[in-house]
Parts: sequence; C-alpha cells; structure tokens
Amino acid sequence: MPPFTNTRTVRIEWGDCDPAGIIFYPRYFEIFDASTAMLFEHATGLTKHQQLKTLGFAGYPLVRTHARFLKPTRFGDDVTVVTAISFGRTSFEITHRLSLNGELCVECSETRVWVVRDAEGHLKSHPVPEEVLAKFRA
Amino acid sequence: MPPFTNTRTVRIEWGDCDPAGIIFYPRYFEIFDASTAMLFEHATGLTKHQQLKTLGFAGYPLVRTHARFLKPTRFGDDVTVVTAISFGRTSFEITHRLSLNGELCVECSETRVWVVRDAEGHLKSHPVPEEVLAKFRA
Amino acid sequence: MPPFTNTRTVRIEWGDCDPAGIIFYPRYFEIFDASTAMLFEHATGLTKHQQLKTLGFAGYPLVRTHARFLKPTRFGDDVTVVTAISFGRTSFEITHRLSLNGELCVECSETRVWVVRDAEGHLKSHPVPEEVLAKFRA
Amino acid sequence: MPPFTNTRTVRIEWGDCDPAGIIFYPRYFEIFDASTAMLFEHATGLTKHQQLKTLGFAGYPLVRTHARFLKPTRFGDDVTVVTAISFGRTSFEITHRLSLNGELCVECSETRVWVVRDAEGHLKSHPVPEEVLAKFRA
Repeated sequence: MPPFTNTRTVRIEWGDCDPAGIIFYPRYFEIFDASTAMLFEHATGLTKHQQLKTLGFAGYPLVRTHARFLKPTRFGDDVTVVTAISFGRTSFEITHRLSLNGELCVECSETRVWVVRDAEGHLKSHPVPEEVLAKFRA
Repeated sequence: MPPFTNTRTVRIEWGDCDPAGIIFYPRYFEIFDASTAMLFEHATGLTKHQQLKTLGFAGYPLVRTHARFLKPTRFGDDVTVVTAISFGRTSFEITHRLSLNGELCVECSETRVWVVRDAEGHLKSHPVPEEVLAKFRA
Repeated sequence: MPPFTNTRTVRIEWGDCDPAGIIFYPRYFEIFDASTAMLFEHATGLTKHQQLKTLGFAGYPLVRTHARFLKPTRFGDDVTVVTAISFGRTSFEITHRLSLNGELCVECSETRVWVVRDAEGHLKSHPVPEEVLAKFRA
Repeated sequence: MPPFTNTRTVRIEWGDCDPAGIIFYPRYFEIFDASTAMLFEHATGLTKHQQLKTLGFAGYPLVRTHARFLKPTRFGDDVTVVTAISFGRTSFEITHRLSLNGELCVECSETRVWVVRDAEGHLKSHPVPEEVLAKFRA
C-alpha cells in the first residue's frame, strides 16, 4: 500500500523571514508540524482538538527530525508541502517535501511517538489505536 | 468612500497555542501583520517582495497598536480576519477584526508609517506614493 | 505604595528580526509576556509552572494591550525591560518600558485577568488571591 | 585541538510551550540558532550585526540539521546549551547539547555554509575567512 499523503500550499510571510531576506529555518518546522496535523485531520476528518477529545491520547511528540535545506524561500512565496506517513506500532515516520514552482527546497523526515498520559499525568508511548490506523487505510 | 478591506481565513495551529490550550496572544500580531501584507497585495496585485522591489520603499513599520481580546481561540479554529485601511499622508490606520463563527474574538487598530531608506541607510517616513493610493481607490 | 517592578535584560536575536533588519514587532509581545511571568516569579519566588500547581488558577490571559513603538531595535541589541504592576480585584494592569542604552524604544500597557477553570473546564475570571497580593506587598 | 565551545543558559518560557504543556519543538531551533550566534560572538568579540558589517559576508544559512528529542522540557525550566563547532573550508559543523539538571534532553547537529552576496545579490558559498578561523583558534 503506498503511504498516505497530504498536500497543502503555504504562504511564506514577511515575519517568517530574517535580515538576510530568506525564511528563518525554525519557521519550516512550524510549517511541518502544522502539515502533520493537517495530514491527520485529512485522514480522520477531525481537527487535532477534536482528536484529543475523542481518541484518548495526548499528542504525538517528535523524537527525531532530520532536514536538508536545498534552496531558500522568501516572503511572498507560495510553497507546496507534500507530507507522507508510514506507521510503526507506537511510532510513525513522516516525510515532508517542500517545493517552490516544482523545485524541491527542503526535505524533512521525522519520527513521532503516540503518547497517552499515565495515572500521574506523565506522557508515555502507546500503540497507535486501530481506529486511527483504519482511517489511514480507507 | 468606504475604507478598502480584505477578508481572509486563518487556521489557528497547535503550535500557536500555549499550555492553557488557547492561542498565545503574540501569534495574533503575526496574523495581523500577514493580514496587512495581504491587504496590500490584494490592492496592488504585488506581493510585499515585489512591492519592495518596484515601489522604492523599505516597509511600513508599526508605530502603535491597540488590541482587545474578547474571546479566546484555539487550535483547529478557522478564524476570519477582516482588515480595513484608511490613509493619512505618510501613515495609515489599519483595523483588524478577527472572528470565529460570526463572534468577534479580537479587534485591533494599528498605525503604520511608510518608510524609505535615506542616504545613510536609515529608515525615515515618506508620503505614501500616489501610485499606491490610486490602487486602493480603484 | 509605589508599583512593584521588575527589570531584566533581553538580547534581540537574528531570528527576531525581519527583512528590514529590525525586530518583527510580534516578538516584543513575546518579550513582554515573559517579562510579566518574570515579575510574578520575582514576587512569589515561584516559576509560572510552580504557580499553576500551587495557586489553583489557570493563568492570566490578556484582555487588552496598547503599545507604542518609538525606535526600532535590531539583532545584537541588549535591551532593558522595566515591568510594573498594579492590581485591581480580578484584573491587573502591567506596563513595560523597553529601552536601549537609556533611550525608550517601546512602551506597552496591558490588562490581564486572573482566571480559574470552572466545573466544565472553561476559563472564568476570579479575584486575585490574597496570598498573591501579599507577596507583591512584601 | 578540541572544538571551540560555548555554554549558555536559556529559560523555557510559557509562550514556547504547546497545549501539552511542553516545549513546541520549533522553539528548540530558535534556541540553537541563537546559540550558534552566541558562539561566534564569544569567539570574535562581535555581535552578528557587527560581524555582518565588518566581515563582508551575508550569514551562515543552514544546509542540514538533525535533532533527537530525548526528554521534554517545560516553561520555567532553565536549560543549559553547550554548542561546539568544527570548521570545513566553506562550511562548518555545529553540535548543540541541551540539558536540564545534568540530563541530556535534546542533541542536535547542523551543517552551515558561509555565504557572501554575488554581484546580482544572490547568496553563494565562500571560504570561511582566515581572520575568523584565527579567532576560534585563539
């Protein structure tokens, strides 16, 4: 089965850019985090807020990310982000490919873990629920 | 003549929110700054990047802002921002009204000044060019 | 009694600045929010995290802010922020004066409200506890 | 020769954290970018602003970053960041080790490239100047 993907367009804003006139790279990770959320929303039909209320989990924090920055982007650019997911048991792998006019600018891979809160309120990993996996298969 | 306005929809993201689960208020000003840029883009047909290249100015920094926060918003909310402008000679007034499902959540007024760089590279105020004003009248 | 104040120094970073080379103004509100937190920490001897655990409240969201930007600051600047507070019953007024080398660059006044969570988890205003007020008097 | 290092302490702020109550991970990259700037400032005795004026370059954009997130941090935490550098010809490798109370929370490696502007204003890589390398050897 090919990985589930989501594509969205993001405008790079003036306030995302630094004195060199190009995007300040931490802003890419804000874009990628929102792209991951949008992928889940696309698959489940629920916003992250609704997911947290109904799926009994506490989020999917990042445990690892790796990004390569190939070409800079700047304010006014409308970039395309293609996000793909493949699931493990308690974790999943995400890739983001951000491009401008068909040219790849950034590629990023991240590992996230599905977490719930234990009795003391601490975050701990937990298998991704079957009802979530089923949504991505549909 | 009624003020020139622009309306856009913005998704409040997980990363915009704080441990209380609601938007961290400086993020509203990021939204408003981008809304002002979008208003100018809508009027002139140019991105801010293109405006800076062709209109011979250096930006329109804020000199004053006043915001009232009436109702919180949270991640997953798609808010509507209506931005209006009225011009003075070297400055202009912007208002932003941000609402969710028709209920006003934030209202903000700001004063910005049109600036150019002088011979030493310092920013100084300058009359808004007639060619810009004409675009907003059209 | 003069208002309780706190003074701190903040470095303006490269990533706080925009393509004009000056600070992107929403970053000032991040600085001011942290300055308010530091004022409370200074008075109570508790971090905000510890306050939330021990003082039975849910934060002090902003209801209004007004800022004037007099002179720009840029990356590498070490600015001084003087924050003062005066209490009402369920709200308080904060002023921040941000200066560089003794010159005032930004002044900001904000109104915040003390909130608790009601039985449904909604935020509602609540009188500032006497034990908090006492700390600021000490 | 051991790598040149710089150590600094950073307060994690309320506004750096997300609705799970832990730091929103793009904020780590803001911290790391500022840590790299501080390392250069420590070595050269110049702020980045002064470096850009005197060293004839246009910055050191990131070409690659890899981070592992081992333990979360939260608002009120004072974390320690140890940053080390080793130089190539036109690029350099940076590592950041962020810890709380002696426990490693995040480790990050990044590759950056020294850039100058060519005649058309485009950024291009350039050997790190000998006068900069000498400062790091001193």
